[in-house]
Amino acid sequence: MNEVLNFGMVGGGYGSLIGEIHRKAATFDLKAKLVTGCFSRNYENTLSTGKKLGLNVRRLYKNFREMAEKEAKRKDKIDFVIIVTVNNSHFEIAKAFLEKGINVVCDKPLTLEAKEADQLVDFTRKNDLLGCVTYTYSGYPMVKHAREEIKKGGIGNIRMVMVEYLQEWLAMPVEKKGNKQALWRTDPKYSGRSNCVADIGSHIENIISYITGLEIESLCANLDIFVKGRALDDNAEILVKYTSGARGIYWCSQVAIGYSNGLKIRILGEKGSIEWEQENPNCMKVAYLGQPVQILFRGRDNLNPLASKVTRLPGGHPEGMYEAFANIYTNFSKALLTKKAGNSYRSEIDFPTFEDGARGVKFINLCVESSQRGACWVNL
Amino acid sequence: MNEVLNFGMVGGGYGSLIGEIHRKAATFDLKAKLVTGCFSRNYENTLSTGKKLGLNVRRLYKNFREMAEKEAKRKDKIDFVIIVTVNNSHFEIAKAFLEKGINVVCDKPLTLEAKEADQLVDFTRKNDLLGCVTYTYSGYPMVKHAREEIKKGGIGNIRMVMVEYLQEWLAMPVEKKGNKQALWRTDPKYSGRSNCVADIGSHIENIISYITGLEIESLCANLDIFVKGRALDDNAEILVKYTSGARGIYWCSQVAIGYSNGLKIRILGEKGSIEWEQENPNCMKVAYLGQPVQILFRGRDNLNPLASKVTRLPGGHPEGMYEAFANIYTNFSKALLTKKAGNSYRSEIDFPTFEDGARGVKFINLCVESSQRGACWVNL
Amino acid sequence: MNEVLNFGMVGGGYGSLIGEIHRKAATFDLKAKLVTGCFSRNYENTLSTGKKLGLNVRRLYKNFREMAEKEAKRKDKIDFVIIVTVNNSHFEIAKAFLEKGINVVCDKPLTLEAKEADQLVDFTRKNDLLGCVTYTYSGYPMVKHAREEIKKGGIGNIRMVMVEYLQEWLAMPVEKKGNKQALWRTDPKYSGRSNCVADIGSHIENIISYITGLEIESLCANLDIFVKGRALDDNAEILVKYTSGARGIYWCSQVAIGYSNGLKIRILGEKGSIEWEQENPNCMKVAYLGQPVQILFRGRDNLNPLASKVTRLPGGHPEGMYEAFANIYTNFSKALLTKKAGNSYRSEIDFPTFEDGARGVKFINLCVESSQRGACWVNL
Amino acid sequence: MNEVLNFGMVGGGYGSLIGEIHRKAATFDLKAKLVTGCFSRNYENTLSTGKKLGLNVRRLYKNFREMAEKEAKRKDKIDFVIIVTVNNSHFEIAKAFLEKGINVVCDKPLTLEAKEADQLVDFTRKNDLLGCVTYTYSGYPMVKHAREEIKKGGIGNIRMVMVEYLQEWLAMPVEKKGNKQALWRTDPKYSGRSNCVADIGSHIENIISYITGLEIESLCANLDIFVKGRALDDNAEILVKYTSGARGIYWCSQVAIGYSNGLKIRILGEKGSIEWEQENPNCMKVAYLGQPVQILFRGRDNLNPLASKVTRLPGGHPEGMYEAFANIYTNFSKALLTKKAGNSYRSEIDFPTFEDGARGVKFINLCVESSQRGACWVNL
Repeated sequence: MNEVLNFGMVGGGYGSLIGEIHRKAATFDLKAKLVTGCFSRNYENTLSTGKKLGLNVRRLYKNFREMAEKEAKRKDKIDFVIIVTVNNSHFEIAKAFLEKGINVVCDKPLTLEAKEADQLVDFTRKNDLLGCVTYTYSGYPMVKHAREEIKKGGIGNIRMVMVEYLQEWLAMPVEKKGNKQALWRTDPKYSGRSNCVADIGSHIENIISYITGLEIESLCANLDIFVKGRALDDNAEILVKYTSGARGIYWCSQVAIGYSNGLKIRILGEKGSIEWEQENPNCMKVAYLGQPVQILFRGRDNLNPLASKVTRLPGGHPEGMYEAFANIYTNFSKALLTKKAGNSYRSEIDFPTFEDGARGVKFINLCVESSQRGACWVNL
Repeated sequence: MNEVLNFGMVGGGYGSLIGEIHRKAATFDLKAKLVTGCFSRNYENTLSTGKKLGLNVRRLYKNFREMAEKEAKRKDKIDFVIIVTVNNSHFEIAKAFLEKGINVVCDKPLTLEAKEADQLVDFTRKNDLLGCVTYTYSGYPMVKHAREEIKKGGIGNIRMVMVEYLQEWLAMPVEKKGNKQALWRTDPKYSGRSNCVADIGSHIENIISYITGLEIESLCANLDIFVKGRALDDNAEILVKYTSGARGIYWCSQVAIGYSNGLKIRILGEKGSIEWEQENPNCMKVAYLGQPVQILFRGRDNLNPLASKVTRLPGGHPEGMYEAFANIYTNFSKALLTKKAGNSYRSEIDFPTFEDGARGVKFINLCVESSQRGACWVNL
Repeated sequence: MNEVLNFGMVGGGYGSLIGEIHRKAATFDLKAKLVTGCFSRNYENTLSTGKKLGLNVRRLYKNFREMAEKEAKRKDKIDFVIIVTVNNSHFEIAKAFLEKGINVVCDKPLTLEAKEADQLVDFTRKNDLLGCVTYTYSGYPMVKHAREEIKKGGIGNIRMVMVEYLQEWLAMPVEKKGNKQALWRTDPKYSGRSNCVADIGSHIENIISYITGLEIESLCANLDIFVKGRALDDNAEILVKYTSGARGIYWCSQVAIGYSNGLKIRILGEKGSIEWEQENPNCMKVAYLGQPVQILFRGRDNLNPLASKVTRLPGGHPEGMYEAFANIYTNFSKALLTKKAGNSYRSEIDFPTFEDGARGVKFINLCVESSQRGACWVNL
Repeated sequence: MNEVLNFGMVGGGYGSLIGEIHRKAATFDLKAKLVTGCFSRNYENTLSTGKKLGLNVRRLYKNFREMAEKEAKRKDKIDFVIIVTVNNSHFEIAKAFLEKGINVVCDKPLTLEAKEADQLVDFTRKNDLLGCVTYTYSGYPMVKHAREEIKKGGIGNIRMVMVEYLQEWLAMPVEKKGNKQALWRTDPKYSGRSNCVADIGSHIENIISYITGLEIESLCANLDIFVKGRALDDNAEILVKYTSGARGIYWCSQVAIGYSNGLKIRILGEKGSIEWEQENPNCMKVAYLGQPVQILFRGRDNLNPLASKVTRLPGGHPEGMYEAFANIYTNFSKALLTKKAGNSYRSEIDFPTFEDGARGVKFINLCVESSQRGACWVNL
């Protein structure tokens, strides 16, 4: 058998959709195997989840600290841990495992506070550990194609970016009607200073950074609370100025009736433009100046290397979110296996890192700050 | 023969596309007849255009002042005049005809300065004259349907508006390569303080006002000059706060490669949302909370009265911009015929008026002001 | 004033949509002027329609024979007549005017019987008269572009054609509920041997002949009556073999719930394919082997000459059915003006002729014959 | 750990895409585990594939007969075998395992000859074994929703079915240029009497049978060889008459430039219609008489039970072909687990069975027969 990484999981117990998605994604390409977990604060849930997954009961833990400590002592200790708990716990869990020399994959946002995120970044750098933050959407092949197309200068210097991320699930006060996901998302105690920008606006920031490499110089954000009685934002409009002089509009909403998960990206360059929609991820619209508009299809048209590498099915056979998620884990696993083998792995990194995670946290907090100051322009 | 209005035209000589469009639109439903004109500053052009159109040479004039004066003295003087000249001449031409008691249809923007626009508004009010500004897009049936759907409360109170108006024709410095239209559009002498916002951003302002009735309280605009060497904006991002508390994003661009005339409107309400695209104008996406997304088709589905009234062809037989334009003239003509017959006509007005035009001028100038002050928030 | 043709009209009285469409189309480009008519069998209707249209009452006739005779004697007799009556009257009306030396534009189908159509074709040829049959859809610019693209060999030899023309208006027995259009369409007395194939299947035959030049060698047609109690077909499936060896599928339906006027054309060649939909007529999908799929837009992309010539508005400003219809009349008028001027006009013909009309009648009757014989293959 | 089925695999060695897809699909929901295989005729390939997959070398076999025999004798013998070999070997491999009491999942087509398929069906019935044929597309949630919607009478009695399945990969003679997949697909030795109809036309037959329950009474098929030099069909047009009186058009093509895997289904009923496209599988167009057209989205709108049950991700998070494939295996595994537990499982069967496979073989052969007899109508 090829070498396979072993991993554990904090959070993601029975009934958690995102836990299941991470497990499928991490193991999709047979590069990693789940061997341990602390799936819930409720030990019974951890036990039943572990049993369902065929895990050894000795490696099912009551809390993450016990897990970090005991796993660290094993000869066959895990190569990495996946953290899929509520946002406000990410920091201390990640820290606990890193301190035991265990690499970390963490759900986004990496932390609530920028300081915490910076601390994690520093720690991984100093100790040569790998950190990954699972911003799902950079895993899609067409997104990777766009990144390389832009890097190659295909559409020239970027002038304008417009990204919208529209959902409808919080259009009504469902948090008052028993929707648990809504309950913690709209609660500052678990979500920090922002709901909508933190949850989906941060995906915008990440995917644009990934695709374009543009750096935000300043921004002007207005965070709305459209559903009365909420403490946190459920919609936001953000104007962005990049250091290159390019401009951006980011719009995220959880009250956009008719939209399920409408992430749509448009990038205008001096020589062409690119357009991609997450809900129809296998194709991409590209327009070059003076030429007919093209529709590129994954598996049909020639894609750039980073994209081809993560394309599994022939054209016309749709790939979806599981595959995008798997691509993040597969790229992470490849880098980790290279590192384990003692080889240079930095150039192989094509997944969202803790640096990306830390920048994301700052973006969220800067948006909150701008909005609180009357949607004025603030510098990063 | 049913009563038909007589009209004249200033501008729109041979070779002018917009002149031809106005003529076809004004006469499409046989409610008005062109009888006179001063189609160009070049009298030869006026003569040849007039001949081509079968007009009496005695009613072809060397300049608009002569035309206003001589027409005013005729027993069969024109009912209205259409002004399709360069932006900076609208004011004085409109004034000249109004002062002779002739109703005016003027291309947009109504004037360059807010004061001028207000003056025209005042004059028409005091003298009970009809003024119309040809904001094309409010003429589309689906736009009218949206207006009434919202008025009826179909989507509840509006939370958010997003409108984009994307073109590509100025992505390169074509004004330096002999494109005449580009030459005057990008020249402050003819276009005033703004190109992109004045030309297409103003359409956004108008159509949203028409559909939603929302009033802008303040806005934050950033006007870009992406093509080096230009004096005026070719792209703009605008955040809007309405007096109702609703929020808006307006994005207009003339450098959006891949887009010809991409006006797209999205309106999010508490109970539903509406989406319409000008390039595919015969349908509209509507989503009501908890129900499947619907696609409404002109001529197929039940439309609200203002929309049904201007629907000519059965479902599936596409109507386009000529028909939308004609709807403005037909509604204007109906109101004018009612007025001429001595009947009450105010309630019949369903076309963009000088009031709309004046508000549009203020919007343009406010955007320019905001941008010049660092894209800060400014109040209307 | 440029020379303008004079024309008259048989049928198309007040309340007739198609009459209004023909009038707008014929005069859209100011190449022809309506001067006479017999708009209805009901003389009152003719009078009121004529009055509404500003016609001289002396040129409003009680029946088409009187019209043909009296007009023929005038010095300023009409250049052509438009026939928009019920199908079974086309033949004798066309014949009457042709015999008086008046050119004819006739709604489709040209006649009910092939013999009649052949007789009209012969007569026009022998007497050098122009005949036009208003198959609307060949008037669209993108359709003309497709024709020339194929002629140039852009997609290589054609292998396969698939055309569908789907409507829903006869999904229920609306002819029993007062729908007049449905009443005569489904009545063999007025419609002849076929309803659906004659009405919309014939458009498929015409547009494919126009675009591809393919000649039908044999066909296998099954005509369905899905709504009980009907005497004529409301749906049909047709397999076609062309003389070139290419193959085709034609599907027409009036019971396709969800479709208003869904004419969609797909043509597969050895080197590429073309796809066009009438309800979204300003664009066209083109795919060349080994290249990204392209979306061409009227007014944006370079179109072939026949298409460019009939493109009025810039890209992104939708043109619709009125313009397509007008293109047929404008091309007809240009040819007629050339002929009148004594010049060679044959090469200028780009509109559906009586030859096309006659072939269409044969196609309809052949489909009926095949279906009656158990949907067997029959040769043209 | 929950009970998990054990399975083996014949075919699907390293480098086989379809083998990898089957493995991922079979194990996606953790209901089954791969424990043995004969992945190739080349034992080295079997060994390296098995090693890569972490299998015990003792359960890697040189040929399928050895595997069937030795596995049958084990106490922990496999619950089912997956057959993903070239078409002409399906029969004997399936037979070998069934005779040892091992359930079978077989790639489509089940066999080349109808007799063989019938024999397998008989054998499974008599011996109470489960047979599954992996017609992928019936695994999509929206397809299941359509099936139940029709069963409930949502669109009334079916009038018309149109299915197209369009690919482009054989538009050129790629089999002569080293494309291995093309080589065996176009070779009668491996593919039997048909290539295109057998490969993709059979998917049409299956999915329509699954969705509608319609039974074919007779058909008229024309199989084309558009690429010169080929022995088997690369395109086909098929007219279908169902026993209910409904009619159908099936079109499959491998020379449709611009299409990767364009399976599109349209079903017209007396009260509504349904439309679904495999390349955009998460939504479905539904039109009910007199109501606006609806777009249903998986995960957003209320789906019928069979569809909800196999929906994994929330709305807007695309699922693709892996998930559809997994649904077939998961439903098969559930039925098998129920059977193993000694419970009644017949009502639980929601996957394509050997009965479906046998009907598919007959369909293919009937199409070939019709075409050879001049595309005449033949009865099933």
